[in-house]
Amino acid sequence: MMSPKQTQTAAEISEIPSTIKHQLEMGIETYWAVGNELRDIDVQGYITCARGSSDHAATFFKYLFETHTGLPVASIGPSVATLYKANLKLDGFAAIAFSQSGSSPDILALLDAAGRGGAKTFSVLNVTDSPLGKIAETILPIHAGPEMAVAATKSFVGMLIASLGMLAGYLKDRSIISTLQLLPDLAQEVINSEKELPMGQISKASSLYCIGRGLNYALACEIALKFKELCHLHAEAYSAAEVLHGPATIAHEKFVTLFIESSGIESASMEAARQNMKSRGATVITLESIPKLTNPSNSHCRIELISPIVQIISFYVFVEKLARRFGFNPDLPTGLEKVTKTF
Amino acid sequence: MMSPKQTQTAAEISEIPSTIKHQLEMGIETYWAVGNELRDIDVQGYITCARGSSDHAATFFKYLFETHTGLPVASIGPSVATLYKANLKLDGFAAIAFSQSGSSPDILALLDAAGRGGAKTFSVLNVTDSPLGKIAETILPIHAGPEMAVAATKSFVGMLIASLGMLAGYLKDRSIISTLQLLPDLAQEVINSEKELPMGQISKASSLYCIGRGLNYALACEIALKFKELCHLHAEAYSAAEVLHGPATIAHEKFVTLFIESSGIESASMEAARQNMKSRGATVITLESIPKLTNPSNSHCRIELISPIVQIISFYVFVEKLARRFGFNPDLPTGLEKVTKTF
Repeated sequence: MMSPKQTQTAAEISEIPSTIKHQLEMGIETYWAVGNELRDIDVQGYITCARGSSDHAATFFKYLFETHTGLPVASIGPSVATLYKANLKLDGFAAIAFSQSGSSPDILALLDAAGRGGAKTFSVLNVTDSPLGKIAETILPIHAGPEMAVAATKSFVGMLIASLGMLAGYLKDRSIISTLQLLPDLAQEVINSEKELPMGQISKASSLYCIGRGLNYALACEIALKFKELCHLHAEAYSAAEVLHGPATIAHEKFVTLFIESSGIESASMEAARQNMKSRGATVITLESIPKLTNPSNSHCRIELISPIVQIISFYVFVEKLARRFGFNPDLPTGLEKVTKTF
Repeated sequence: MMSPKQTQTAAEISEIPSTIKHQLEMGIETYWAVGNELRDIDVQGYITCARGSSDHAATFFKYLFETHTGLPVASIGPSVATLYKANLKLDGFAAIAFSQSGSSPDILALLDAAGRGGAKTFSVLNVTDSPLGKIAETILPIHAGPEMAVAATKSFVGMLIASLGMLAGYLKDRSIISTLQLLPDLAQEVINSEKELPMGQISKASSLYCIGRGLNYALACEIALKFKELCHLHAEAYSAAEVLHGPATIAHEKFVTLFIESSGIESASMEAARQNMKSRGATVITLESIPKLTNPSNSHCRIELISPIVQIISFYVFVEKLARRFGFNPDLPTGLEKVTKTF
């Protein structure tokens, strides 16, 4: 329940640990079974359909599946169906829509066109009794409960978990499932924690970069959008490699960069980009990854796969506070609605 | 030749009309033949490999081929090969690398991995005698001549033309080729023109959005990067639909948005986004599309396909001047090199 002082956004963030617990109980076998199916039908590649935060969840799916299965993942813009009315040729592909509400007309149109083009259609969805729920052949419900705040938080986390569950099934890797079981406690821990990003440094930025790599690039996209939506702060996401191809030029003494730290294989390239930014005089802030679990009984944990989830929750707690400090109401982003209809 | 006052960047922009003429003479039959081949071998989809401006050319290819052929185009991040060493499974795919220099180690690694994964490999390339030229099965040379300036201009234009030539061959549509033949004159006209974007309004922006849709979204990406590289101005690209899903919140009275106008099917959605931005108080600037040719003998011209090329040349002329007005040397973007090695 929302206390008089608490925003709807904060209330939904605080529900995340229990939402994850509920999602794992209710959903994990479905995700596992869909992953099994994707492997058994021998798909040749994936199409994703999404917008906004859900599209960043699709980017997480892309890195996850390209690196673990070797199959390509193409994000197709809704306009290919709505505006250009292309006759998609997608035999052998799985088309996966990511949506909280299942009500965006352009995502519906694209998934429908993908199905008519021969793709098997799936939807990672919160509101399952929605138009998108009706047209997808297979639904992966994320069980996040009602999400009223304009800024998606619970549903974004739920989409990452659904993707990890599908990957587990695809690889028949139970260690991913057992790693996911750590999430409710880790999420609660990070919500209770007093640790936060240096608010003062960020509040002085006229604009900033959010930099991640691999799975954390998807996080950087989501973080940049939340800075915009809730704090009216112009933040742009880059991968740690791409940022060195030109975009680095605007980094100077008053420029702020937020690095989404990885504890895994990406850390060396993240460090190279961080040093490059520092050498230009930019202020570098780090959203820490969760440390590797050292208990030997957990040595099979795929902690690098769930670290991004803990990190984004930590960021949500922070950005909601930052918005209020800036004098904005996180529940009322200027001129936005929960379902954007652009078609 | 560079006059004492002229920058290398300006010199290369001024070469574009003759470069296009040369490219069409030398290259168009190759592009046509590759397009034929792509149709004949019945590819199921495309992979693109690129970074920086070349990646924006790959985005142009993506919209062009998805809307006209119905096949998906997946941009795979180089890290999938370099960092994660994924065993790509790309039987039936065509993998196309876009590169000026052909020397970026990460693009080489990705195209090599794509080939080992079963994809047919292609490279749209300026320096054909390069490492990338050696590993691609088929080269599409863009014949742009030496490009010394750090900011790619000639080579970006050349990549768009090569993609249009491939599409013409794929569709066996000679009207696209005859439309391309209009480009050298149109390019010269736009370079000679005194018309330019309102410099004063842009120079007052603390940061800005560049907004396009379809093919012009690729242009918006390229324009945003050039604002950064040459003018140290934080510009971010959005599609006209996506910008309404959250990013619009930061548009206010001092915010500037540059709309990359379309004369085609995209114009209504561009207008809706423009009105949204105006209603928030933002300053709206428009990079005009070239008007439809009205001469009845040209009625089969696919002018909407070449308008983006004329528009980007017009922008290059402008941004080089803007950089100098800001006191930057366009030939020396801070801390950048022509070939960025991130692997």
